[in-house]
Amino acid sequence: MSVTIRRIAKDLQLAVSTVSKALRDSHEISEETKRRVFEYAEKLDYVPNPYASSLKGRKSGNIAVVLPEVADSFFSIAINGIESVAQVKGYHVMVYLTHEDQEREKFILRDFRSGRVDGVLISVSRGTSSHSCIQDLCEKNIPLVFFDRVCENIKAAKVITDDYESAYKATVHLLQKQCKEIAFLSISENLDMINHRQQGYEQALLDHDIKLKKNNIVNVSNEEEKDVVILKKLFKRKNRPDGIVCSVEKLAMLSYSVCHELHLRIPNDVRVIAFSNLQIASLLNPSLTTITQPAFEMGKTAASLLFKALEKKKINLGNERIIIPSELMERASSL
Amino acid sequence: MSVTIRRIAKDLQLAVSTVSKALRDSHEISEETKRRVFEYAEKLDYVPNPYASSLKGRKSGNIAVVLPEVADSFFSIAINGIESVAQVKGYHVMVYLTHEDQEREKFILRDFRSGRVDGVLISVSRGTSSHSCIQDLCEKNIPLVFFDRVCENIKAAKVITDDYESAYKATVHLLQKQCKEIAFLSISENLDMINHRQQGYEQALLDHDIKLKKNNIVNVSNEEEKDVVILKKLFKRKNRPDGIVCSVEKLAMLSYSVCHELHLRIPNDVRVIAFSNLQIASLLNPSLTTITQPAFEMGKTAASLLFKALEKKKINLGNERIIIPSELMERASSL
Repeated sequence: MSVTIRRIAKDLQLAVSTVSKALRDSHEISEETKRRVFEYAEKLDYVPNPYASSLKGRKSGNIAVVLPEVADSFFSIAINGIESVAQVKGYHVMVYLTHEDQEREKFILRDFRSGRVDGVLISVSRGTSSHSCIQDLCEKNIPLVFFDRVCENIKAAKVITDDYESAYKATVHLLQKQCKEIAFLSISENLDMINHRQQGYEQALLDHDIKLKKNNIVNVSNEEEKDVVILKKLFKRKNRPDGIVCSVEKLAMLSYSVCHELHLRIPNDVRVIAFSNLQIASLLNPSLTTITQPAFEMGKTAASLLFKALEKKKINLGNERIIIPSELMERASSL
Repeated sequence: MSVTIRRIAKDLQLAVSTVSKALRDSHEISEETKRRVFEYAEKLDYVPNPYASSLKGRKSGNIAVVLPEVADSFFSIAINGIESVAQVKGYHVMVYLTHEDQEREKFILRDFRSGRVDGVLISVSRGTSSHSCIQDLCEKNIPLVFFDRVCENIKAAKVITDDYESAYKATVHLLQKQCKEIAFLSISENLDMINHRQQGYEQALLDHDIKLKKNNIVNVSNEEEKDVVILKKLFKRKNRPDGIVCSVEKLAMLSYSVCHELHLRIPNDVRVIAFSNLQIASLLNPSLTTITQPAFEMGKTAASLLFKALEKKKINLGNERIIIPSELMERASSL
């Protein structure tokens, strides 16, 4: 139940106007009453609406974009897609970074209940296992659209790419290049998006009568130093992988560094394909084969859905699910 | 002069409480009076403070970071430096992108007068020629710290790197590699930061008795297609440059693409050095010689200054000017 001034007034047997004035620290209210109101409001986890007293019908004019990071070309391009829509609508886009930290994500989302933003676009962090804060926003009728990293079990609009099919294609591509030992580099077991990619990889192997090996699915942490150790171990293994599918861009860069250090040649010793929107993929040494996601289009589509909800409140965002396909761009790393 | 409810009340010969209630659309006030108040408030460009009626002493808990873009590794790393400080202080960091557009920058800054944020960190857009909006925030005592791209003529805190010295060193580095025709790629004539870099380049040539040629200083636009044309023209010139100093990262990537397309070899035909924080500079083909800025440190330092001002209001931000040196990292593109 949403805590309102009315609720506080009822429970404390005070007039609504008294509670309202107490919360505004009005001199008309006794210190004793103010203390009671503050303590009770805090106990109920009451979030004051900073805009409640503003001009009638005025909204914050902000939409929030909640992202794991911006040092990834998918996200930095997606922001541009979102802004291309928001600008036309005269809205501010506020970017919040979770740094893959669930606690930070909660802290950010919790604050949105105050009316600070009119709507939320979110790509969840890899650590997100409980989604109660997101569920909470949806229940409070704050329009919310997931993009890329979605929570399948929450009834909200989703804009995704064909993760399963793309990873399937990527794996088949490596099989066609005669790879025998293909590894899948993952960043999380909690992300539906990564799971779909992993399922595509697994199905491609099964369809080609290749036995799935658990130790070919490698989970990295979110700390570069640790990840270097994990990858070195992988590439020094007796049955070293001769092909790798990187589920996100960062893992491709890491693989390049580690292969370079271990004097493994790409593509001769190890073929590499990665989900990546790096515009300079073709300038890498060797140029990187990518599954290029429609990042701009995904951001734009997600923002368009959000504004539909903001403009006429009757759209049921929970029923929207839009899939925009990715594209395999063959380059030298998988020759 | 800052417009307050008091000013509106005085000018319209109404009670302060009447204006306050009218602005909140109270039923106690006649429609006629509300209309008069709204019209006059709009005429005066009155920005309501969304937090004015909130708990006494409560701040927004937000700081704003205003940036040209996030698809540049300097900015994406600087954000991390800023967040490392803000998180400890329990503040939200809101990232606003100007996309190098002065009008958008004004739109964003104008909104900050409402108390939406407690302080501002800004790296100005290349198009910024008038700084009245920034000046305005400073005059309203909203703490503001410039980083990287600063406005020298505004009395506010500044955190920069040694732009002049770094560009001087970069140019000398190319001269030592026997480059005879060194071009400087610029993104703006309005940015003090770029001007300092250009001055460093010019002084290095002068100190080595090389005549400065105007057509070796090349300004690009902010549109990739146009920039490709500009660079192709440069590299097809009779006295083609054999060395280039790129004032920002994006220009290095563009130079690589154009050289590749024109079959010019880096470093054999053209040596390249760039201001860049690209973590994968060493993975490019060939690996890129960079002037690596202390991006994280600059963001962190700028945020620390801002919080000093937020915590004890007596610090004079106008006197702060911190210079953190960059580092030349020699790689294959300038061998």
